[in-house]
Amino acid sequence: MLKQSITICFLCLTITQSSAQKDYTKYVNPMIGTKSMGHTFPGACVPFGHVQLSPDTDNIPHNIDGKYQKDVYNYCAGYQYDDNTIIGFSHTHFNGTGHSDLGDILIMPYTGETKLIPGTKENPELGYRSTFNHNTEKSEPGYYEVKLESYDILAQLTATQRAGVHKYTFPENERAKIILELKHGIYNYDGKVLWANVRVENDTLITGYRITNGWSRENYTYFAISFSKKIENYGYKDFAPSKYQGFWRKFNMNENFPEIGGKQVVCWFEFCDDDTDNLEIKVALSAVSTDGALKNLQAEASPFVFDEIKEKAHNTWNKALSVIDAKGTDDQLSMLYTSLYHTMINPSIYMDVDGNYRGIDHNIHKAEGFTNYTIFSVWDTFRALHPLLNIIDTDRSKDILNSMLAHYSQSVHKALPVWSHMGNENWCMIGYHSVSVMADAIAKNIPIDNNLAFEAMINSSNLLYYDNIADYKQLGYVPIEKNGSAVSITLEYAYDDWTIYNTALKLGKTDVAEEYKKRALNYKNLFDSEIKFFRPKYSDGRWKKDFDVLETHGQGFIEGNSWNYSFFVPHDVEGLIELMGGDKAFINRLDSLFTMFLPDEFFENTEDVTREGIMGNYVQGNEPSHHIPYLYAWTSEPWKAQFRIREIMNEMYKNKIDGLCGNDDCGQMSAWYIFSAMGFYPVCPGSDQYVFGAPYLPYMEINLPNSKKLVIKADKVSDKSRYIKSIKLNGKLIDRKYITHAEIMNGGILEFEMDNTEARRTQRGTEKY
Amino acid sequence: MLKQSITICFLCLTITQSSAQKDYTKYVNPMIGTKSMGHTFPGACVPFGHVQLSPDTDNIPHNIDGKYQKDVYNYCAGYQYDDNTIIGFSHTHFNGTGHSDLGDILIMPYTGETKLIPGTKENPELGYRSTFNHNTEKSEPGYYEVKLESYDILAQLTATQRAGVHKYTFPENERAKIILELKHGIYNYDGKVLWANVRVENDTLITGYRITNGWSRENYTYFAISFSKKIENYGYKDFAPSKYQGFWRKFNMNENFPEIGGKQVVCWFEFCDDDTDNLEIKVALSAVSTDGALKNLQAEASPFVFDEIKEKAHNTWNKALSVIDAKGTDDQLSMLYTSLYHTMINPSIYMDVDGNYRGIDHNIHKAEGFTNYTIFSVWDTFRALHPLLNIIDTDRSKDILNSMLAHYSQSVHKALPVWSHMGNENWCMIGYHSVSVMADAIAKNIPIDNNLAFEAMINSSNLLYYDNIADYKQLGYVPIEKNGSAVSITLEYAYDDWTIYNTALKLGKTDVAEEYKKRALNYKNLFDSEIKFFRPKYSDGRWKKDFDVLETHGQGFIEGNSWNYSFFVPHDVEGLIELMGGDKAFINRLDSLFTMFLPDEFFENTEDVTREGIMGNYVQGNEPSHHIPYLYAWTSEPWKAQFRIREIMNEMYKNKIDGLCGNDDCGQMSAWYIFSAMGFYPVCPGSDQYVFGAPYLPYMEINLPNSKKLVIKADKVSDKSRYIKSIKLNGKLIDRKYITHAEIMNGGILEFEMDNTEARRTQRGTEKY
Repeated sequence: MLKQSITICFLCLTITQSSAQKDYTKYVNPMIGTKSMGHTFPGACVPFGHVQLSPDTDNIPHNIDGKYQKDVYNYCAGYQYDDNTIIGFSHTHFNGTGHSDLGDILIMPYTGETKLIPGTKENPELGYRSTFNHNTEKSEPGYYEVKLESYDILAQLTATQRAGVHKYTFPENERAKIILELKHGIYNYDGKVLWANVRVENDTLITGYRITNGWSRENYTYFAISFSKKIENYGYKDFAPSKYQGFWRKFNMNENFPEIGGKQVVCWFEFCDDDTDNLEIKVALSAVSTDGALKNLQAEASPFVFDEIKEKAHNTWNKALSVIDAKGTDDQLSMLYTSLYHTMINPSIYMDVDGNYRGIDHNIHKAEGFTNYTIFSVWDTFRALHPLLNIIDTDRSKDILNSMLAHYSQSVHKALPVWSHMGNENWCMIGYHSVSVMADAIAKNIPIDNNLAFEAMINSSNLLYYDNIADYKQLGYVPIEKNGSAVSITLEYAYDDWTIYNTALKLGKTDVAEEYKKRALNYKNLFDSEIKFFRPKYSDGRWKKDFDVLETHGQGFIEGNSWNYSFFVPHDVEGLIELMGGDKAFINRLDSLFTMFLPDEFFENTEDVTREGIMGNYVQGNEPSHHIPYLYAWTSEPWKAQFRIREIMNEMYKNKIDGLCGNDDCGQMSAWYIFSAMGFYPVCPGSDQYVFGAPYLPYMEINLPNSKKLVIKADKVSDKSRYIKSIKLNGKLIDRKYITHAEIMNGGILEFEMDNTEARRTQRGTEKY
Repeated sequence: MLKQSITICFLCLTITQSSAQKDYTKYVNPMIGTKSMGHTFPGACVPFGHVQLSPDTDNIPHNIDGKYQKDVYNYCAGYQYDDNTIIGFSHTHFNGTGHSDLGDILIMPYTGETKLIPGTKENPELGYRSTFNHNTEKSEPGYYEVKLESYDILAQLTATQRAGVHKYTFPENERAKIILELKHGIYNYDGKVLWANVRVENDTLITGYRITNGWSRENYTYFAISFSKKIENYGYKDFAPSKYQGFWRKFNMNENFPEIGGKQVVCWFEFCDDDTDNLEIKVALSAVSTDGALKNLQAEASPFVFDEIKEKAHNTWNKALSVIDAKGTDDQLSMLYTSLYHTMINPSIYMDVDGNYRGIDHNIHKAEGFTNYTIFSVWDTFRALHPLLNIIDTDRSKDILNSMLAHYSQSVHKALPVWSHMGNENWCMIGYHSVSVMADAIAKNIPIDNNLAFEAMINSSNLLYYDNIADYKQLGYVPIEKNGSAVSITLEYAYDDWTIYNTALKLGKTDVAEEYKKRALNYKNLFDSEIKFFRPKYSDGRWKKDFDVLETHGQGFIEGNSWNYSFFVPHDVEGLIELMGGDKAFINRLDSLFTMFLPDEFFENTEDVTREGIMGNYVQGNEPSHHIPYLYAWTSEPWKAQFRIREIMNEMYKNKIDGLCGNDDCGQMSAWYIFSAMGFYPVCPGSDQYVFGAPYLPYMEINLPNSKKLVIKADKVSDKSRYIKSIKLNGKLIDRKYITHAEIMNGGILEFEMDNTEARRTQRGTEKY
């Protein structure tokens, strides 16, 4: 025993040393996904921070004269690589979403004439925006820099959890000036800003806020900004002044009046000359109050100077990334660590340093015993992001779950988050997948209040006015005449219901288990056994006519057609295989999915995936596909999973600006990659099983939060040797198709013997969850 | 000594008994001032409560297509007696202001068809409003009732400090329904409501809020409403839906959807039938949060039922009014107690039961050791309302002062309130008269932080960008080319500066005293000794040409012409008399003011006073006149003060609906009346002196907060015997023109010997403050 202990300690020491020495951040390339559909941002943030300080390269209004502007979709993260102008640097950005919002509190440095409009891409000189060249950009975890050509200003950005930190180096003999934009926003429209306020507290400090009515229906962004130089003059313009100004009109508010308010406010500041060309700006955010923002500023960004904060951000990232120590080619490691980086942005901390946060009821709450998070893109992230956190960062996962439970407790609907951010539910996408997130946590013994979680799961699945739950409960499916996504919804409800069933079993609630077992089988109600596809059905039981298995939106499906969704029964793959006609038929269907020919025109109107992200009719860029390649594991030809997964990883995740084949979706695309690189995937979150694909890299160490570690070895793995011959955990052969959570968390060595020949490994395929 | 003690105790007993037995509320007629220019409201409130629940009889927009609607002015209190329809009952109302705002959270009961617009005066049936007849109205302190004819509903209203309580009796067999209006407001305009929210928490409780951009630039009104019947159905319409609805559109939000949000929201609720025709509704307000509103609801209005709350409101008022026990005719007592009532509405409590309140910086603060108040119409109330509170309610005065100091500490301008309400400065009117309020409190030993108060006074008087303080400091006057109210401002600054001077003396700050002594004499810079009037001057020292001593607005004056303002040197009446040419000349000027003939047309465009409120060129309805009749006390003919004051009280304060000759101005008009009835008036707040007029009633007991009492006797007083022959305080003759604060607070008997002959009493007239 003694000897063993010593060995472990020695191991710890090794890890610590190697972690301390190794710079994992160098592999991270935040530019991946900034071109095309990745919707990632290149700017600075720290892991799971409230602030993402990043350049916005254009500002497309959501609509003009009521007409939706399709281009707005390209700017979900504010930045598009193809642009060559920067409007400024704003403080909040989603990572890789397919819908957008935020872009709060934009700052732009400039010299010379003050212009209060941004100008246009084509004529940047009309406004304050600047041209830039990608050659001058540096983007790394916690740091971004660019030269603003129009003004010859070097812009450097870093961040703390709650503050963005700017450093602008102005040309010698040029007065330092900045624009502070409070009408700019991502997914903007006239009227989005309900009110904005700025107080010039003293000559180096301003506070303020804005309340927006955007995707987050009522989003409160408070700020406190400190400057390294003294303000000499300032002013503003309200581009949509209130009809009624009252007696404020007795002031000349345009210049040097310290209390600014309005709906379309753009401010300018000129700073005193001093002995430096650098202007440092610290912008702390809060959703609570300017007092909260000030506290955050003081706690996190004072008295640090830019370089110290930058170094701290770097170290924080390096520590976070060191959870995985992997070997591979530079490109492979870039993809791996960039993926890991992208899983560490959303959800984001949404709480002041004193524990106060704005709840979904818009009241200010004190987080007792947890850190509050926001940005829950649950339809995406229930699949792999939350399961990943349940392995690599259980404390954070617990906080996130508690944040979801706080949301539930404060929700007037008594429902868990669907897609919520910044203290508001936005109801995007379908399902009640937070029940899956809860179930997964309970299955994996994350220490939350199981009773509250279970109550929240039950209530969320019975919110009758939400997406035809009433119909679903009555008919066993959502009828097509009532909802254009009826089949997708039915399938996802059935899966979610299974997670409730499984949790009820675990918690000993047999009555509830029985009820939800039935609901979990509802998927069968929409399987048309004649055509062997899931198919929309009317309330009266008739199948929808004019049904095309390739059509998506409005035809019963969303973000996937019947081909894709016909594989969405993650909780009863055996049942699905049976419906489909057994092993061979199922394999044929999977094969067809990956190999069928669809012309380019077929994907022309697909908004959120690139052509590169499509393999036959398989669409990695949309989440309903993510578990599909792993379904081969249930068949007699599991090596086809091993083949396909490596294909997907090779072809659809590339270390280049347009290296993501679809929206990163708050880290779900990236979490898929991490799991797939490890060689297993949570096909059915809510169970404790991870289904084997094949490892991607010869060596990965996972430093588990319980201080154990899991080493994943696949010495001979290569594009050729992509097939598994055998799997051993701590020397013992695993002949199942999955590894359990307990096995992972217990650590040790998971050794894959790889081969270039298919079908060497047989596995038992009969276990049910 | 022993005997004396016994007497005093016996006296206390008597007071207590008589207070307990006597119903002072019966004298109060809240209808006084509800017609014409009084701008009082007839609804229910408790003393200084946050809530004033009162009927609004129309809703005139501030502007239509950018054109100011003059009629809006008539609805400062929401109610005009001449109307015969009621839109509904809203929860916040100013008392007697000359500008307006509020009218938050309107509720209207109805039966039958649901209409979501109010309809018009002419065609009430187009909307939810109802006709009514004044015969069915009852209005008394803390209670209001009216029959809503259109629906045959009896409406009864009462209030707690933070909640309005409604009781609606519906016709038998009619389902109870109400409108909840969140776009209604006083001084309304399209866009005033920035956002409104409603949550249906359960079948008897809703919460919500609205944020308005009105006279209060950013006013947060949160509410919690509980119903005695269960909600059966509900819904809403947003009359100006956001261009972008996001995924909320997946719901049918129009009916029975519990989370309503929008800018122009009108809700309806239908209640379940039960065994009663009464619907009771309790509406608690908060400026902090819906959580705060809920706490307020629970603390103040639960588990009470309507009749209990009504009785409590009655008792609270009776106790408050018992501070004065007076004898007189019924009309005299009605006017006296209604005036007292009107001095007890604003300022109003602005703090939740837990001490949280929204500061002027829009942060949430905890009031430590004080109760926070809002609604500071300081240009009006520095004159007599605050001095009155410094006599009759010193604890409340201390709280009000601390609230003003909190405002100062939170103000980015580091300035005391000018005219502030609901956590916002609205900058209405002129001067920095909060310094007078502070000075008066310090002079009268109200226990506040004198150092903080003094700092606030200094800073408020040096806010260079406020109303030409920079010019005033540089030139010694405000130049007319820069400010249309230049003379009024200069005179008021000079007075305010005197209060700082006097405070500096008291606090031993001799340097500051010296500086402000000079500033206090600045009034002389605008006295044109040729014409013996104050006159506008340009920066270069030239007098304004084309100057008319009768003109007001924009011609150097505001709410008074040069005739009126030429008497505004309350701090140096001797100096003014000297400028005017001595005693006789000054008397002549005063006589002329009161007796000069001005044709009716002259006052045609005067918005805020009635013809009855004018005596010659003296205008009681506007505050700059209030001290003027008392100036006779400085002359050789003090009886003329005694004559005029009784004339004013007889002619301009009448126990009838249009009995106020001008806006009550948050109690200033009424406080003038109380003081004048007592026989003295604070001509120069900030000094500790009250200048004698003449008592109005034969007997008044003032129950001082230090448990002493002052009895004011004037046995023989009458319209004929209106002149003072002698004044004795506790048996000692007073031959000065004033009584001191210490003398008043020491209590005892102030005995006026009255006579019908002028000039019997001589007084020394040489004391300076």
